[in-house]
Amino acid sequence: MAYIINNENAMFYECGFSCDNGYFLKLKNKAYFVTDARYTNEAKEYIKNAKVIQGDRRDLLLSIREILQKKKVKKLSFDPSSWSVSEFERLSKDLHVRFLQKANFSQKKRIIKSDDELKILAKASKKGAKAFDKFAAFVREQGIGLSEEELFFEAEKIFKNKGKLGLSFSPIVGINENAAKPHALPSKKKLKQGDLLLLDAGVLYKRYCSDRTRTAEVGADFNFKKQQRFKDKLRQKVYDTVLKAQEESIKAVKLGVKASDIDKAGRDVIEKAGFGKYFIHSTGHGVGVDIHELPIISQRGDSIIEENMVFSVEPGIYLPGEFGVRIEDVVVAKANGAEIL
Amino acid sequence: MAYIINNENAMFYECGFSCDNGYFLKLKNKAYFVTDARYTNEAKEYIKNAKVIQGDRRDLLLSIREILQKKKVKKLSFDPSSWSVSEFERLSKDLHVRFLQKANFSQKKRIIKSDDELKILAKASKKGAKAFDKFAAFVREQGIGLSEEELFFEAEKIFKNKGKLGLSFSPIVGINENAAKPHALPSKKKLKQGDLLLLDAGVLYKRYCSDRTRTAEVGADFNFKKQQRFKDKLRQKVYDTVLKAQEESIKAVKLGVKASDIDKAGRDVIEKAGFGKYFIHSTGHGVGVDIHELPIISQRGDSIIEENMVFSVEPGIYLPGEFGVRIEDVVVAKANGAEIL
Repeated sequence: MAYIINNENAMFYECGFSCDNGYFLKLKNKAYFVTDARYTNEAKEYIKNAKVIQGDRRDLLLSIREILQKKKVKKLSFDPSSWSVSEFERLSKDLHVRFLQKANFSQKKRIIKSDDELKILAKASKKGAKAFDKFAAFVREQGIGLSEEELFFEAEKIFKNKGKLGLSFSPIVGINENAAKPHALPSKKKLKQGDLLLLDAGVLYKRYCSDRTRTAEVGADFNFKKQQRFKDKLRQKVYDTVLKAQEESIKAVKLGVKASDIDKAGRDVIEKAGFGKYFIHSTGHGVGVDIHELPIISQRGDSIIEENMVFSVEPGIYLPGEFGVRIEDVVVAKANGAEIL
Repeated sequence: MAYIINNENAMFYECGFSCDNGYFLKLKNKAYFVTDARYTNEAKEYIKNAKVIQGDRRDLLLSIREILQKKKVKKLSFDPSSWSVSEFERLSKDLHVRFLQKANFSQKKRIIKSDDELKILAKASKKGAKAFDKFAAFVREQGIGLSEEELFFEAEKIFKNKGKLGLSFSPIVGINENAAKPHALPSKKKLKQGDLLLLDAGVLYKRYCSDRTRTAEVGADFNFKKQQRFKDKLRQKVYDTVLKAQEESIKAVKLGVKASDIDKAGRDVIEKAGFGKYFIHSTGHGVGVDIHELPIISQRGDSIIEENMVFSVEPGIYLPGEFGVRIEDVVVAKANGAEIL
């Protein structure tokens, strides 16, 4: 299959390099990386499996079109979700090429992780978990009285580890009712003893993502262990329900099951406890060079789980105006079930 | 004109709120903001000029299509550069609506800044400039021996000012030959006395961007003033040429001139000094809620400069493998010329 890629993570997966103005073109016998003068030196340094071509910065697609014409390419696959209407028009206009829409073809290719990728993902998760512990220590020692904005800033700092790591996404730090907004922006709300605190964060290590969420009550021995004690009975009930749901979803990870079965295992626990309508998102998503990739673990998720798929399991219960609880780990599917990374 | 917006900054401009799963739809007499359950509460809090509608998280476009049909919309404008091929298909398939491609219509709308926007942009620039001074102090006091990665990390920290500000883009910190790559990623290269250091960075303040670049030689009185002394003669010559080019481009800012005239004024200086082929990018770009917006100040820039347009002026000379110099400020066009923000 001949194909063209304009997405940075997808091109990194193909050739070990990416930049914000580049295209990766794979033909039958040859691959090309087209970029502009700002990036050609670095591209040549890193890319071993494709010819680096310097194009016109204003429109690299001129070079791509030239190659397509010279090589008499008949069919070219592309991902319709990563090309804008105008970019695709510039690529395809008046060319005698059949363009084939292949939705998510790069993510599909990447859905089963190689041993090398698994090692990197495991290391990323370990580094992410370490950052959670560092953040917990920070909260214990200096967190009381800080705003969500300030806690968010500290979380970014800790997860970046003096610039050694990137962030797989912007951390989510939510206190009490703000933890009930699954993607809340940090506010000026200040942390007090006894508050519920949710942290959802991950690092980027060698271009691969970690992802984890913990929820805990702020007190003298604040930590992000999975067993948590809450003074408030409702909080405890919600927490224990989410933890049980996560355990059941993780247990449901087996080769050959449907993604929706994993979602259902946890969702059943939450529904049975009477919180069904407060679990307002899906159970998980694949994790790799993209923070959200395939498979999707949802009520409609129809991927069949295969060995070495890597995805998050993150049920949650969100009581608007009160508080929210989410617990998340990334797992890899293996012959004898899920292994938590 | 009825239109639909899927870009976060463009929707923020319309209604003062945005999120990563939302659409802003403007019809003749009514506006809508469609988002999912995660964001509806916040959306209702912030949006006063549009009806907030909770759609299906998996496909908000179902709600949009419903409105278009119910309101019998005949024509709808959209920006083909911000819609993916697949997203646009989901929006438009089998609807009796004429979709009009209006390239960059939101940026075009935003090209002249209001007084309120100018105040925010000026404040953003001031905060950005302050961060430059803080970073210079850090380099003087603790910078020697740190790697670009560590300096980058510190720059991010300083520009974010304990979480009070965002970053308008990821800062660029380049030492010597790495400053010759206009968009280099930070490396493990360590800073020494006498090195040339380039910093390109900006803050995000109330959703508006600042943008600035300075280049300087590292020494006891390291600072980011525009007058700089370099021990090396070639560096001094290149620096003085870039500074002169920037001054000439800024002088060329007058109401009614073409953007390309501003580019030419600086480019002529660089060409005359014999460095023409090392000025490998355009002179500037508009700055607003997007870090790169209209007008484009380039050799082909055909925008006519009007009062209260805001853009960067940032010529540079890049000697590959040796060093690079860029000097950048953001200016606003006024009746009596450019004012530096």
